[in-house]
Parts: sequence; structure tokens; C-alpha cells
Amino acid sequence: MRSNGIAAAPLSPDDRGLHYGDGLFETLAVRNGQPCLWRYHLERLLLGCRRLAIPPPAAAWLRREAAQEIGDNAVTGVLKILYTRGPAQRGYAPPANPQPTCLLRYTPAPPPAEQAIHVRTCRTPIGISPALAGLKHLNRLEQVLARSEWSDPNIAEGIMCDPEGQVIEGTASNLLLWHGTTLTTPDLSRSGVAGVVRRLLLEQAAAEGIEIAICSISRRALQQADGLLLSNALIGLRQVASLDGRPLTAPFPYPELQQRVTARTFTPESA
Amino acid sequence: MRSNGIAAAPLSPDDRGLHYGDGLFETLAVRNGQPCLWRYHLERLLLGCRRLAIPPPAAAWLRREAAQEIGDNAVTGVLKILYTRGPAQRGYAPPANPQPTCLLRYTPAPPPAEQAIHVRTCRTPIGISPALAGLKHLNRLEQVLARSEWSDPNIAEGIMCDPEGQVIEGTASNLLLWHGTTLTTPDLSRSGVAGVVRRLLLEQAAAEGIEIAICSISRRALQQADGLLLSNALIGLRQVASLDGRPLTAPFPYPELQQRVTARTFTPESA
Repeated sequence: MRSNGIAAAPLSPDDRGLHYGDGLFETLAVRNGQPCLWRYHLERLLLGCRRLAIPPPAAAWLRREAAQEIGDNAVTGVLKILYTRGPAQRGYAPPANPQPTCLLRYTPAPPPAEQAIHVRTCRTPIGISPALAGLKHLNRLEQVLARSEWSDPNIAEGIMCDPEGQVIEGTASNLLLWHGTTLTTPDLSRSGVAGVVRRLLLEQAAAEGIEIAICSISRRALQQADGLLLSNALIGLRQVASLDGRPLTAPFPYPELQQRVTARTFTPESA
Repeated sequence: MRSNGIAAAPLSPDDRGLHYGDGLFETLAVRNGQPCLWRYHLERLLLGCRRLAIPPPAAAWLRREAAQEIGDNAVTGVLKILYTRGPAQRGYAPPANPQPTCLLRYTPAPPPAEQAIHVRTCRTPIGISPALAGLKHLNRLEQVLARSEWSDPNIAEGIMCDPEGQVIEGTASNLLLWHGTTLTTPDLSRSGVAGVVRRLLLEQAAAEGIEIAICSISRRALQQADGLLLSNALIGLRQVASLDGRPLTAPFPYPELQQRVTARTFTPESA
């Protein structure tokens, strides 16, 4: 754990991250002691700082902090970066001169197992919040409630719909659906997190001339999908084996796209 | 500052309050060294714990902690109670045996000035989140963004509408509108915080036979209102002098109701 450049520093109880969720986070895969998709994570973090008007970290400083936190012996694990507007007096108004808090924690962990991914749909709706949509911010209580709906260790993820019944994302992953050879992914302009692997997938698909429609997806369209992929920085792009107990056995029509995205997800980027 | 019964204890950087906003808070007025509306604040906190499945604090313990934090010399001020699911490992899934964090901070402060309250409407929408509606939870980033829209010290509050244009609340207060003698307050079943003074107002009005409709209120209905009251635990129930520069000069048709609610808001409750 590093906090503002110091190992194991305590957190101020006045931090606005605690009081309001006034901040952002990134969760990075680490391979060979190096963070993966560093540039994508950094760009999302900086975009979030712009949208929330939090002074951004210096990119080179943050990269050095990440290396410090990962250390020399690390091989495979997870790096979490948490970045808040820092401590302040009571009240929602941001301080005139915020001193952001940057926490980094590296956790050694094996790569994700290759077992079949079983998924369920959640009852907890994900809110419609255009002001925050797309950002990986610290207001994640809906995800906590959705993830509380199951404890079966065989269920890897839960899918959340907004109050109007539109499919948005998993509690910690983005979705790609297919019906025949038609690929769709939920529009995230009103809700959800614009994941780094989702971005990578959209860019890679465009480069290969494969169309992915970004659109509203009803719960019914999800139920009728031939198949479903989940993506995030820790699992890459993975096919779902069953949804609410219904087996999804159709093969993904673009297996090379999936392989390239997953390989790229776990390619370490040295500084 | 007290943290889990200890003065000035540091906060764990693994606290789920920080990582996910996984918790609740209460902001209480203190008069004559005693918290006001203690029972209403406590009941809302306990309801929030039930809805979020966080083990609740023991009421008598929390009351003693509040007295400890306020101390002997305090006269007038603000007590903030922050209550989270406590520290845990990475991941949204709540721990099987959460150890909640309870922070209390007393800040001496004069009673609010009696000056005219000028209000504006905010551009930042407040999200539609049925899972969290009514709770005073720690996911408050939309309020931070809304409160960032102005720095003019003469503007006391900003009013937030949901993405469909329905009026919900102020960044830190509830609303009561009147058109003639018809009183309305926004429905909070999809968004917003069910304030303790709002509850007191609804109960007091019912006891006096005065009807307040809890309903959807459009931005247009707000603009056409004869007048507007704001309520929270620190200001009581206060009339707004202007909205977006438009003077609101009509007197509130039930001044005794307003006086009784405000008087009750600031009546200390001894343990």
C-alpha cells in the first residue's frame, strides 16, 4: 500500500473519497511485474479527473508509484489505484485547492482460472446517472447490493439492468452480445462504466472491419441472445457458459477477435 | 473525532466506505450540548443499515459515543456520524462478518444566520436509483458536481432534477412547494434523500390536518410555484427568497406549521 508516495501512510478521516465517493479508481492486471493496458487505464483516469474537475496526477509520477508498489519480485497480480479529491472540511462544495489522495495497492494473485463462466441477472437496478455515466468513480453501492444477491461460488458475475429494464453491464464487467453474427454492446451514455477492455474490443473490431453496434439492449434481447462475452481488465474477454441456468453453447463467431483482445489485455507495458 | 469508540483513530485504507461509498451518514444539529432530532436520525440510520444489510450500531452505544464526541463544553454545532460496512478485501461482495466503521465528528458552529435564502437550479441531474432512493448513503458524487456549479456565496442552495426533468431536492435539503394553498413535496421513491425534517414536516402537517401531496413535480411546476421552503437538520424549515433570480414574495400560507417544525428541529433531546 502506498499513499501519496509514502508506504503504508494512514488515510485522513476527512477524505472526500470516504465522505462522498468523490474520486475514481482503476484495477489493473499485472504480468511479469508490469501493469497491463497502462495507457488505457491512465487515459480513463485522466478523463475522469477532467469530468470531476479533480487535479490529475502527473503521469510519470503515477507510473513510478505503480512500479514502487508492485516491487521487484512481483510476477502476476492486481494493482488497484484509488484517486480522490483528498481531505476537506464538511460540505459538498469542493475545496478551492484540493490536495488529491492517491492510494495504490498491489495484491499478488494467479491469473483467472479458465473454468466456465456462469452468470445470472440481478434484481438490483443500476441507476440512470448521465452526470457520472462511463466513469469508474467511487459511488458503487448499487454494485455492492447487486453482488450481495448471490453467494454461490459457481456464479461468476451478475448482470444489471437500469430501472427501465435496459441491460447495462455486469457488476464488474462489460457485455458483448451476439445474435447470429450481429454484435451489440450496451450504450453507456446514461449508466455504467466504460471499461478499458471494452474500448480495446471496439477499437480492435473496427480495425478488423467487424461491426459492433452500441445501442439500447432490452432484457428480452439479452434472454434471446445466442451468446454473451464478458470483459474486464482482470479476465480479458471471456465467453459466458450459461445465463440464469440457460446454457449458451453457440461459438462466438469471431474467435480471432476474442483471442487478440484477450492477448492484448494481458500484455505487460513497461514504462 | 471518534472512530469505533477511540478518539482520533486512523481510518483503514481498506474501508469499504472509501472504496465503494458502502455506508451511511447523518448530520445532526447540536444545541445546549445535545443532538437534536436524535430519534429520527437514529431511525433513518437503522433503516439504512437494514436496506444495505450492514450490522447496525447499538443505539445506546451510539448515543454515548455522540455525547463523548460532543463533550461537556459544547453549546451549538454540528455532529456528523459516518457509518460504513468497514474494511474488507478487494471486490464488491460484502464480507461474511463485516466489522462496521463508525466515525463521529463534532464541529462547533453558530446557528444558521436568518438571512434571505437565494436558490438556483442546477444543470447536473440527480440520478434515478430506486435501490438507494431515500437513504442518506455515501454515494454523493452527483451532489458534489451540482454544488460545484456555483461559488457565489449569496446562493445558499441548488435544486436538482432527475434526467427526466422531475424536481427531486436541493443538494443538501428537501423541498416543499406551494401553489395557492396547495402544498407539494417531491416523491422520493426513485431518487433523493428522505430528510428527517421532511419527515417531521409531513407528520406535523398530518397532525394539524394540513395536506401535503407527495408527487412528481416538473421543472415547470417549480418555476410556477408561489413559493418554496427548504428543509434540513441544520436550517430547519426555511422560506426561499428567490429562485434563479425570480423573487418569491408570497407568504407561506401555514406560518404556524413552519414555526412548529423549525422549533422542533432545534429542540435538543437528552439521552
